[in-house]
Amino acid sequence: MAFRYPNGKKFVDGRNEKKKKTVSKDVRFSNRGMSLEEDINETNEYYLAREIAVIHKKPTPLQIVNVHYPSRSAAVVTEAYFQKPSTTDYNGLYKGKYIDFEAKETKNKQSFPFKNFHEHQIEHMRRVISQGGIAFALLRFSISDEVYFLEARHLISFYDQRGESRKSMKKADIEKYGVLIPTGYHPRIDYLKVINDKML
Amino acid sequence: MAFRYPNGKKFVDGRNEKKKKTVSKDVRFSNRGMSLEEDINETNEYYLAREIAVIHKKPTPLQIVNVHYPSRSAAVVTEAYFQKPSTTDYNGLYKGKYIDFEAKETKNKQSFPFKNFHEHQIEHMRRVISQGGIAFALLRFSISDEVYFLEARHLISFYDQRGESRKSMKKADIEKYGVLIPTGYHPRIDYLKVINDKML
Repeated sequence: MAFRYPNGKKFVDGRNEKKKKTVSKDVRFSNRGMSLEEDINETNEYYLAREIAVIHKKPTPLQIVNVHYPSRSAAVVTEAYFQKPSTTDYNGLYKGKYIDFEAKETKNKQSFPFKNFHEHQIEHMRRVISQGGIAFALLRFSISDEVYFLEARHLISFYDQRGESRKSMKKADIEKYGVLIPTGYHPRIDYLKVINDKML
Repeated sequence: MAFRYPNGKKFVDGRNEKKKKTVSKDVRFSNRGMSLEEDINETNEYYLAREIAVIHKKPTPLQIVNVHYPSRSAAVVTEAYFQKPSTTDYNGLYKGKYIDFEAKETKNKQSFPFKNFHEHQIEHMRRVISQGGIAFALLRFSISDEVYFLEARHLISFYDQRGESRKSMKKADIEKYGVLIPTGYHPRIDYLKVINDKML
């Protein structure tokens, strides 16, 4: 979910941008195109409206430390911190199947850094697979605007081979083991088509 | 998820306690026993640790309005508001099946108020059923400490019959169409047993 500021600026989750955290908000969030998250949310709304699937993004996990209750108005959270998610961001139901995925983007051209994934997200995907669910990742190379569908079993296999000298997946491997999703307008990123073609 | 205050007090989602919102925090959150949410979270951890099922509570949805980025420390959300959830609070995967439920409690003795459920949560349950998922509610009568498993198709049917003169479900109906879940220590609320016995 992209949160709207009163001034119309979008809040974009900054967890993967730690190095930039001292930069001011206006600089950080300016000049962004449509984010992967927005494209996926619109795709999910498309699926939902047409009764194709029921897939939602989970809310951003926050540790709430302080809540103020002004009389006669809504409770205000006045202090909260972003938490690492214990699962992937998206899940739901398609043709009776449990669907679970994570979506990430990189500005790299030839590789996708593992640091985009938390250990417990990978662990979650292992569990989903062993329980018979469909788990995958949507990986966008933002410079070339390409989105790949990569089954979790491949992502996990790459992840397990990571190390000091291997901190990312090669784009060539993602091309080989994944599926390039044609992006459109309606839906923008038709990832269920890949599931239909390859996984059902 | 129950959030811990630094003073050890728990944050309990106050959306169903609007009438009490001018009461101070200390009064509101004192003298509470183990909440239904905590019992279910422990049950889900039990299922997860034993590789029985992968079921999580979704984070509380918050509209983030202001985030402060102090240099060299974590981003702080300084203004956020509770949002109505667009789905149920819990979902996941069990024996290859998509599982989706809402958990609510009442202090009433003989009825369960519909105001505990948002229209879009009921709508979400309709969608889950029509896509072949397993949807239900866990309803606790906190005075008698009884937890009932009620399939969503019954909940929806009761909900559709609500009106000015019918603002709650009768406990007798919940007893008739639902299943009383014996509460224990490990797991505390073994709701998957009901799914096993009645729905698979």
